[in-house]
Amino acid sequence: MSNSDTGQHIASAFDRDLEQILALIMKMGGLVEVAILDGARSLETRDVELAEEVRKNDKRIDALEEQINEIAATTIAKRAPVATDLRMILSVLKINGNLERVGDYAKNMAKRTSVLAEMPRMDGSEAGLRRMAKEVQGMLKDALDAFVRRDASLAEDVRARDLDVDQMYNALFREFLTFMMEDPRNITPCMHLHFIAKNVERMGDHVTNICEQVIYLVTGELPEDARPKDDQTPFATEAEVP
Amino acid sequence: MSNSDTGQHIASAFDRDLEQILALIMKMGGLVEVAILDGARSLETRDVELAEEVRKNDKRIDALEEQINEIAATTIAKRAPVATDLRMILSVLKINGNLERVGDYAKNMAKRTSVLAEMPRMDGSEAGLRRMAKEVQGMLKDALDAFVRRDASLAEDVRARDLDVDQMYNALFREFLTFMMEDPRNITPCMHLHFIAKNVERMGDHVTNICEQVIYLVTGELPEDARPKDDQTPFATEAEVP
Repeated sequence: MSNSDTGQHIASAFDRDLEQILALIMKMGGLVEVAILDGARSLETRDVELAEEVRKNDKRIDALEEQINEIAATTIAKRAPVATDLRMILSVLKINGNLERVGDYAKNMAKRTSVLAEMPRMDGSEAGLRRMAKEVQGMLKDALDAFVRRDASLAEDVRARDLDVDQMYNALFREFLTFMMEDPRNITPCMHLHFIAKNVERMGDHVTNICEQVIYLVTGELPEDARPKDDQTPFATEAEVP
Repeated sequence: MSNSDTGQHIASAFDRDLEQILALIMKMGGLVEVAILDGARSLETRDVELAEEVRKNDKRIDALEEQINEIAATTIAKRAPVATDLRMILSVLKINGNLERVGDYAKNMAKRTSVLAEMPRMDGSEAGLRRMAKEVQGMLKDALDAFVRRDASLAEDVRARDLDVDQMYNALFREFLTFMMEDPRNITPCMHLHFIAKNVERMGDHVTNICEQVIYLVTGELPEDARPKDDQTPFATEAEVP
């Protein structure tokens, strides 16, 4: 990737800027991964302090997003990149935005810990959410690896894994409906848990967006096929509930 | 805004590109406004054909988003804009992304029309959703006006109105909880309606993001204060339900 061996001053200045931006993206990605896992763990263990930590760390994530946006804008202005270099910077801006959104969803998940801690446990659902969050965190890790290594085939793999997340969400949705019908006291906790499950499913969509940017960077084209999508809940009716 | 009277060839070429991009943004904004209103109307009147139209139009919105992204990238590469011009293009990219997301939420709303049409009506909730959607559409219209006119104070006004949307959402959330506790047969339709209400509330957040970009464009800074936020549902417990 480095152009420094070509001796072009402009190109190597761009490379230095880019390296700085990539380092910040990886730092931000690490924080977002932690936020996903800690957010889900705070829910399951009803750990209000951990939830508070997730909320605090989200401020660091937001600050990194702004910093990356600024450096990218300065890089475009100073280096006037074209072709692959420009495409890289524009992809970085998109990945940056998607990372921030995932962090935001993790923060929203943690935010509900204190209220859920006051309510009856929905047997197994918190663990189901934690598994779903763990899956998304793994996808994010691999998506960022794919980005750093310019590995389009790894990005394709991660993208396909989003189907699993969608299916985990569908299973949880049906579980919540059943709990609510069994006992009206389950309605409020299940509304909150459903909200969280939907947010985790959305995190998966944002990781998928990151993968699409990686594929675009490497191949020059966004994937042709629409993203695999398996949220069946728009069509869920009571009849389907066991 | 035009630099053509300075006689600079580069600058006026940039202005022509920018004009083209702005025209496409406004076209896209118009389509998204229609999608919001039609999506909510299709739900309320249980009009499956109208819902199908919203889904089809979303493809046009997505195509416009891609087209705008491409022209913006080409403009950066060819014109190497700096300072205000660069800031403009980067803001356009963000506004573009936010518009696409709002369109996506409208499509998701329409998608649930056919399943909700098979279920009992929740008295007044569909109308409540339609009023909320109408409010968001009005905000979007004004946000785009603020963008075209570089009117930071209008953008501030629109941003403040998002509080109303958040409050409408909170009221609907409590309404859904009540319906579900009254009768378990209301649980499934209310889960869908809650999902839709949350999406409309999120549309408001994206319109707010657009306003923040307008403020950034005009003043050079993002608004200092965190965005006004009034989603109280993370803290809603059964005790609060009438």
